[in-house]
Amino acid sequence: MRIALDSMGGDRGPADIVDGAIQAVTEADLSVTLFGDEEKLTAILKRSGPYDTGRIDIVHTTEVVGMGESPIEAIRRKRDSSIVVAFKRLKDGEVDAVVSAGNSGATMAAAVRSLGRLKNIARPGIASIFPTLKKPVVMMDVGANVDCRPKHLLQFGLMATAFSEGIIGNDRPRVGVLSIGAEQGKGNSLVRKADKLFRDSTLNYIGNIEGSDTFKGDVDVIVCDGFVGNVSLKISEGLAEAMTTMLRAEINNSFVAKLGYLLARGAFARFKKRIDYAEYGGAPLLGLNGTGIVCHGRSNPTAIKNAIHVAAETVQNKVNERIVELMAEITESSEDSASSDDNKQEGTS
Amino acid sequence: MRIALDSMGGDRGPADIVDGAIQAVTEADLSVTLFGDEEKLTAILKRSGPYDTGRIDIVHTTEVVGMGESPIEAIRRKRDSSIVVAFKRLKDGEVDAVVSAGNSGATMAAAVRSLGRLKNIARPGIASIFPTLKKPVVMMDVGANVDCRPKHLLQFGLMATAFSEGIIGNDRPRVGVLSIGAEQGKGNSLVRKADKLFRDSTLNYIGNIEGSDTFKGDVDVIVCDGFVGNVSLKISEGLAEAMTTMLRAEINNSFVAKLGYLLARGAFARFKKRIDYAEYGGAPLLGLNGTGIVCHGRSNPTAIKNAIHVAAETVQNKVNERIVELMAEITESSEDSASSDDNKQEGTS
Repeated sequence: MRIALDSMGGDRGPADIVDGAIQAVTEADLSVTLFGDEEKLTAILKRSGPYDTGRIDIVHTTEVVGMGESPIEAIRRKRDSSIVVAFKRLKDGEVDAVVSAGNSGATMAAAVRSLGRLKNIARPGIASIFPTLKKPVVMMDVGANVDCRPKHLLQFGLMATAFSEGIIGNDRPRVGVLSIGAEQGKGNSLVRKADKLFRDSTLNYIGNIEGSDTFKGDVDVIVCDGFVGNVSLKISEGLAEAMTTMLRAEINNSFVAKLGYLLARGAFARFKKRIDYAEYGGAPLLGLNGTGIVCHGRSNPTAIKNAIHVAAETVQNKVNERIVELMAEITESSEDSASSDDNKQEGTS
Repeated sequence: MRIALDSMGGDRGPADIVDGAIQAVTEADLSVTLFGDEEKLTAILKRSGPYDTGRIDIVHTTEVVGMGESPIEAIRRKRDSSIVVAFKRLKDGEVDAVVSAGNSGATMAAAVRSLGRLKNIARPGIASIFPTLKKPVVMMDVGANVDCRPKHLLQFGLMATAFSEGIIGNDRPRVGVLSIGAEQGKGNSLVRKADKLFRDSTLNYIGNIEGSDTFKGDVDVIVCDGFVGNVSLKISEGLAEAMTTMLRAEINNSFVAKLGYLLARGAFARFKKRIDYAEYGGAPLLGLNGTGIVCHGRSNPTAIKNAIHVAAETVQNKVNERIVELMAEITESSEDSASSDDNKQEGTS
């Protein structure tokens, strides 16, 4: 198992990314190929603690796609960028999966261009793993597809089901559609139309769920369009951060409270670990002929390590094969045919 | 100033609602009329602590709209329900505003039917007040309008601006449209079309904001359609609850952490107050010929009290007059004319 790691993306610089790679090869039986500036990466590796040097190598690339660049344009122009070359090597079978903490739009665009879509998948998307009071939940799509049709939602539910089975280990993942009320018929026109497709499918569909159900852990897969999913993801990140900041401020306001915090700091650390995105291994790109994981731009070494492990498990546990299998189960006659070249937008969704 | 209080709605029963009314008349110079079962309400008032009896009276109603009932049907059928009668009295000028913790859809429907819309407002909506690291932010719409047109978003921004001025006390509230990236052009087709309308308006538009900006306090008004807003609101509530539960569980896992918590409990209480919806006085219905506030079904007496005070301030500070004034400033020629009887849905939004 060899994972390609785009080492030039992200907000924190290549040192943290390389550190994550070293942790990953130390904790699991796999190799990592770093894509990026060979000189820089070699220097970072030399400064690093001991690791199995046979398990990390470098592919030199000369360009970098910046976080703010327009994805399509960037990957067209920067043919020797770390992210473009990494996916090309995946396409050529030289690596088994790609992990990047860079520009997520560019990562998706490079992945689609190099790998192409899985059979009958109309729109690849990005899934995200959220912590809950019970097992983690998989939400899809969280940003790749902003204007969706009902059948796209169905396919998001299907792809996230395969991922939930393979990575979270759920048997028949419960699939809910994110809406504004649990009752059937509640929601916008997209959600109301998707409801029928889900009911007619072989997925373990439990109906609409509300935003407040997201973190309870009573649903395994949450389906939404990429606009709603991206807003949900970023609101959650923002709120978790704001709550932590507010709590810290209140504690720092009083000497006694600070003392109390010191006593309770083990509990706080475990709490932080439970809600930390870094523990959940990045966001898988699903629906592609290959495996890609995009990490948060601010990913620390732990987040990179976990993403590498999730990438390896996605390949080992044959998530893509399972997506193709589930697609074959779905009656093609529902709504309109899900032909893979159908990528138009629908006016009413 | 006399506020009508629907005393039969909500999940916690009339005792908490009456308690909120007593707190409200004790802390501010206003009167409250309770709408509901006179016998029950009289009994609750008799059991209550001392209050100025001249400031609370009762209008007897015989029916109740349940939390799960279909709004339109319920208010059509239950003509003597507390919520329907309360809005009728507001229409007749016998009270100055209505507060309800009942079925929010039915509250909106009763309000629209009794009061009608403000001049040129196409779609009344529900705003919600979120805590942030700085001043509270007003988000609109959070559930009344799930499929929206660009001009509806513009009007939500305008109405929330008037509310932010009158209730939060902001001078030129900064208005942002909730999207999946801060750059112009990012978003779904609805958001991209709305952008032009906002740029051409007299509002203090700062462009797109991301979900992660919601709690930072650098924007005063967040605009979104009712589907996205409702999901955002409920995800935030769900996450705040889940984080509190997780933190409590971690603290209870260790004796030393529990001791620490006891020392820090003042800080925790202040933190809880900062994030508690009860402190923010319910969600105003905006765009109507009159003032209505809908509270969370689980509202405790503090939440009811705060909602009554916000209702009074909304009237005193002439929020509706300000909405009409701002509407007049907006060039009617942008997009299509915002005639008040235009209530059709647009295919592309």
